[in-house]
Amino acid sequence: MTPQQKPVILSAPDPRSIDMIFTDAAKAELFRRYEVIEVSPDEVPGLPGPVLCRVDYVLGQPPIPAPTLAQMPRLKAVLNVESNLFPNMPYDELFRRGIHTLTTGAVFAEPVAEIGLAFALDLLRGVIDADRAFTEGRELWGFEGNREARLLSGADVGLIGFGDLGRAMRRVLEGFRTRIRVYDPWLPPSLIRDHGCQPAALDEVLGGSDVVFCVASVTGENEGFLGASHFARMRKGAAFILLSRAGVVNFDDLMAAVRSGHILAASDVFPQEPLPSDHPVRTLRGFLRSAHRAGALDVVMKRMGDMVLEDMALMDRGLPPQRCKRAERETASRMRSKPVDKT
Amino acid sequence: MTPQQKPVILSAPDPRSIDMIFTDAAKAELFRRYEVIEVSPDEVPGLPGPVLCRVDYVLGQPPIPAPTLAQMPRLKAVLNVESNLFPNMPYDELFRRGIHTLTTGAVFAEPVAEIGLAFALDLLRGVIDADRAFTEGRELWGFEGNREARLLSGADVGLIGFGDLGRAMRRVLEGFRTRIRVYDPWLPPSLIRDHGCQPAALDEVLGGSDVVFCVASVTGENEGFLGASHFARMRKGAAFILLSRAGVVNFDDLMAAVRSGHILAASDVFPQEPLPSDHPVRTLRGFLRSAHRAGALDVVMKRMGDMVLEDMALMDRGLPPQRCKRAERETASRMRSKPVDKT
Amino acid sequence: MTPQQKPVILSAPDPRSIDMIFTDAAKAELFRRYEVIEVSPDEVPGLPGPVLCRVDYVLGQPPIPAPTLAQMPRLKAVLNVESNLFPNMPYDELFRRGIHTLTTGAVFAEPVAEIGLAFALDLLRGVIDADRAFTEGRELWGFEGNREARLLSGADVGLIGFGDLGRAMRRVLEGFRTRIRVYDPWLPPSLIRDHGCQPAALDEVLGGSDVVFCVASVTGENEGFLGASHFARMRKGAAFILLSRAGVVNFDDLMAAVRSGHILAASDVFPQEPLPSDHPVRTLRGFLRSAHRAGALDVVMKRMGDMVLEDMALMDRGLPPQRCKRAERETASRMRSKPVDKT
Amino acid sequence: MTPQQKPVILSAPDPRSIDMIFTDAAKAELFRRYEVIEVSPDEVPGLPGPVLCRVDYVLGQPPIPAPTLAQMPRLKAVLNVESNLFPNMPYDELFRRGIHTLTTGAVFAEPVAEIGLAFALDLLRGVIDADRAFTEGRELWGFEGNREARLLSGADVGLIGFGDLGRAMRRVLEGFRTRIRVYDPWLPPSLIRDHGCQPAALDEVLGGSDVVFCVASVTGENEGFLGASHFARMRKGAAFILLSRAGVVNFDDLMAAVRSGHILAASDVFPQEPLPSDHPVRTLRGFLRSAHRAGALDVVMKRMGDMVLEDMALMDRGLPPQRCKRAERETASRMRSKPVDKT
Repeated sequence: MTPQQKPVILSAPDPRSIDMIFTDAAKAELFRRYEVIEVSPDEVPGLPGPVLCRVDYVLGQPPIPAPTLAQMPRLKAVLNVESNLFPNMPYDELFRRGIHTLTTGAVFAEPVAEIGLAFALDLLRGVIDADRAFTEGRELWGFEGNREARLLSGADVGLIGFGDLGRAMRRVLEGFRTRIRVYDPWLPPSLIRDHGCQPAALDEVLGGSDVVFCVASVTGENEGFLGASHFARMRKGAAFILLSRAGVVNFDDLMAAVRSGHILAASDVFPQEPLPSDHPVRTLRGFLRSAHRAGALDVVMKRMGDMVLEDMALMDRGLPPQRCKRAERETASRMRSKPVDKT
Repeated sequence: MTPQQKPVILSAPDPRSIDMIFTDAAKAELFRRYEVIEVSPDEVPGLPGPVLCRVDYVLGQPPIPAPTLAQMPRLKAVLNVESNLFPNMPYDELFRRGIHTLTTGAVFAEPVAEIGLAFALDLLRGVIDADRAFTEGRELWGFEGNREARLLSGADVGLIGFGDLGRAMRRVLEGFRTRIRVYDPWLPPSLIRDHGCQPAALDEVLGGSDVVFCVASVTGENEGFLGASHFARMRKGAAFILLSRAGVVNFDDLMAAVRSGHILAASDVFPQEPLPSDHPVRTLRGFLRSAHRAGALDVVMKRMGDMVLEDMALMDRGLPPQRCKRAERETASRMRSKPVDKT
Repeated sequence: MTPQQKPVILSAPDPRSIDMIFTDAAKAELFRRYEVIEVSPDEVPGLPGPVLCRVDYVLGQPPIPAPTLAQMPRLKAVLNVESNLFPNMPYDELFRRGIHTLTTGAVFAEPVAEIGLAFALDLLRGVIDADRAFTEGRELWGFEGNREARLLSGADVGLIGFGDLGRAMRRVLEGFRTRIRVYDPWLPPSLIRDHGCQPAALDEVLGGSDVVFCVASVTGENEGFLGASHFARMRKGAAFILLSRAGVVNFDDLMAAVRSGHILAASDVFPQEPLPSDHPVRTLRGFLRSAHRAGALDVVMKRMGDMVLEDMALMDRGLPPQRCKRAERETASRMRSKPVDKT
Repeated sequence: MTPQQKPVILSAPDPRSIDMIFTDAAKAELFRRYEVIEVSPDEVPGLPGPVLCRVDYVLGQPPIPAPTLAQMPRLKAVLNVESNLFPNMPYDELFRRGIHTLTTGAVFAEPVAEIGLAFALDLLRGVIDADRAFTEGRELWGFEGNREARLLSGADVGLIGFGDLGRAMRRVLEGFRTRIRVYDPWLPPSLIRDHGCQPAALDEVLGGSDVVFCVASVTGENEGFLGASHFARMRKGAAFILLSRAGVVNFDDLMAAVRSGHILAASDVFPQEPLPSDHPVRTLRGFLRSAHRAGALDVVMKRMGDMVLEDMALMDRGLPPQRCKRAERETASRMRSKPVDKT
């Protein structure tokens, strides 16, 4: 195959880079299989027709104005390597033409679920406070150090949201014989049951759980949807673990519920990132903090490149992509929020 | 049934108490089904023959001299509600007569495995340091906070010991797709394989794992058997999680291996408990500390009573006990070490 | 809500009927939630504009000529309750407009996988011949009756195809500790690995398995793709279980491979259905026969109605369907073969 | 090590032979590790003291009169490679001395569970009759051939007995999402729950199941314990699968229940083996027959040798055996029934 016969990728993965999302081996495969035209995102609208007309894939989510898109007759997919969609290309036209918009955010599900489980165990068993007390020579031994401790095994668990992350949470909970209730209004109840969980109303999830994992995406509709009345409904001493987006909760209400001693909480996401140095959550007892670190591992980013290569291999052969998540016509517009985070 | 026809329990569960190991419901059942003679342990040797000759079960491990035992013709089992055996009764004669010595330490497997998993995740992901940094306003966001972070999913895990606790560790790891190597010279390799793990030599377990859980009992033979040369064999940056008995390791060597930066460690057990206030482990970076709290939960202790009731129900009917662990003639003497802990 | 405000279903589910695919409870819900206009398929092209313009869903796959479709501005989905797509509507236009073509064939995966496992066990253990021998008073007892018997537990299993049916096969094999190799060129290898199976070339699957389950759909490209050379590659005495479509194999070659004693086989599907009364497969030893009965259970058909109701509930709210399988733009045309069967 | 220093095995495994239960590799290991004295069982009582006093293990269950046993001071275990215990040695003295009586019947659990699952699926789906009808040109296609067919997935399953075989049944059922009720009066309920099953009374198991697997051993107490009234309690059309011993049921009552059309049945065991050629079960419709073939596979017998080698390796080192099942003092006498079968 001569270079010009290889499928063509227009690469503008900012704020990622090719080196960030491809291992050395994957990068070598990328350049062996494809002609890769590397540009900065803002160059895309100005690319000449003879270039655009050869493009099979766009890697990244650069602005693609309608006239630019119209000059890309071969385009099969936009491989968006962030987790959110920017409103910088005509999605309706992409859907109309059957050009896939693919996202690779599923790579974050596993690492986030892992640390989410760690947060839950740390809160239920008082791991962090006990270590700190030990450091300071005021540790309590045996039973005396376990006055508030509870088991996760056999506990009632609630999941708010059951996308990739919710399903990954269920997997890491497999060894714990928990009863899992799921609230996800975007899914058919039987699909939740197929995963061994119980579909439930939001109130049941909040009121019937020892640990609630909030793993819902922010949409235009659920901005701040969990507030004081929701936290009040939770069991005394239950743990609320926030893993998706700070925007889903009223953060002040969450802090108040922890401050009052009603619940415990952990969060990887915050209303502002970075957070002001005097933000009260920094010293709030019963609140475990993580600076948007749950998914952002180098080894995890590299899986994006693998996903992209696998799906392009299918599309090269005229087959539909199966590895990345496809944006949906019905929900793409709801997911277009500007991300607040660096992952 | 008149009271005198009920089976008779001689109860001396110190340092536990009936209220500590039975729920209210279980306690009611205990007294409904049995005649319970409550004594202090040191009273047992002096009990009169007419009492001894009616005893079906001993609850606890009071001293039982041979002449006392000889006056208990109906005795079916000593239900030892601690984890170790004291050399205060003639075990050989118990075995000869078929009197079961039953221990309830299996109740600790689940809570210890849970916190062991928490320790592993906390070390691999830097959870505790990240929270502390956040408190102090010096947190690193996203990737920058994850320079050393690693996933547990897909990692190589080693287990030293595969009794109840080792098997409970395997269960809580179920959702993580780990490869688990097990060193347990007391077990047939095929039994380890039946649990989906790989039997391996100690060196393979140490050298081939990202996380090593040490869950072996102390016996006369393995006192301090893990030392500097063993820790040196571990992978750079691997985590060593000590959950069973401090006596299994050379604690100074373990601290040295952590201090040098070669490995990370967590421990629930210590050479002295409580530990001197100036012990260097208190401030050792890379070492997560827990003051013998892993198993000592009230809810866990109550399961001992349930186990005891279930096994007595079988023995009442002439059947062998199935729920508690039976001391083995071959190994009872090896397990008789005085416990260093309060669980 | 007045009747005219309910969403409107144009129902033409032939050869199914509403009573065949909905339980009584589901049917009641269908009529409560929707206005159902019941027509015969051939009436659809002639329906007047004022009816067509109110239609939200088509139930069934009646002919929908382009001009008819053009008069259905509200149409959200064609809920095809068969397993194949007829070329009787302009699929390109459906895709362009974002009208989902949904199929409910996934309901068959579980019952077909169950009977597929039964076929495999029956062949490996000689169940059917042994029962027949018993009836005829010529049974062999114990070892003598097991000369050819083999275990499925721990065996090498091959799957050709890994859609819903292949995944259901994997599930029913869960308790058997088999090593499963999968050949499915339409899927990314990592997705197969995520299910705990090994992606493999067709030759590896055929040559490395004790049992091969053929669960691939027929497409224009794989018609009769498994022939004499493939069966020759199989292990001596291995079992070939055909569960999807007879068209995938050269049936004469399959029979020849069984007749020669090289392999055993079972099939639920045949080149002609019903099969001529003198077809040689009827009396072929080593070949287990099932008259296209694997999926066709009444209780299974009723699940179609449940799936349809769940996905319409989502689409009613502007959300994408999640329960039924969506036809894909890339592969719809390949799947349009006229079905040979009654399921 | 010189030959005389090797541990000594007195080998009299009749009706097995060393070649029947050891693979070539295992046999080589056996002779490398041990001095093997091969005798016929009836020679054992007459062996001279100088031979007996060197014996560490007995392989098989030859008669061992008390005076013979008294001359074997080193004896650690009797490795009985059948499934039942003959009353031909002083078991009480074996227990008193701590000599293990080990049985290897657990090897049969997996193959018997496999075929038990095949029987269940065959009965629920009519596999055998459908194949026979096909042979005879009177098959019914699709739905018409499935009038009585039912799914195992999601069904209610009952287990009578939860020893090795019951647990193996549970394992092969893993992929079927069944609800499993277990009746086993020899086990504590919580142990049954630990395996994900529901402990239940016999009536609940019989009356609440779509399939009942009878996997209980025969003891002196349960001879023929399942009779007409029990089968009458079963659900109409349910399947009763007899896998352990014919003696557990009243076989005439079982046949009557099938003949009346109330239940279906399958059995691997019969009141007489071989069975008279005119026994009515041979032609009973709705009854699937297997001539005691469920466990008797060559590959399975070879696992006995592996088990024996693993446990002797532990006992050689003074450790308790872990692989074979130990006879229990309380129940040994109940299990001593003369076996009716060849396995």
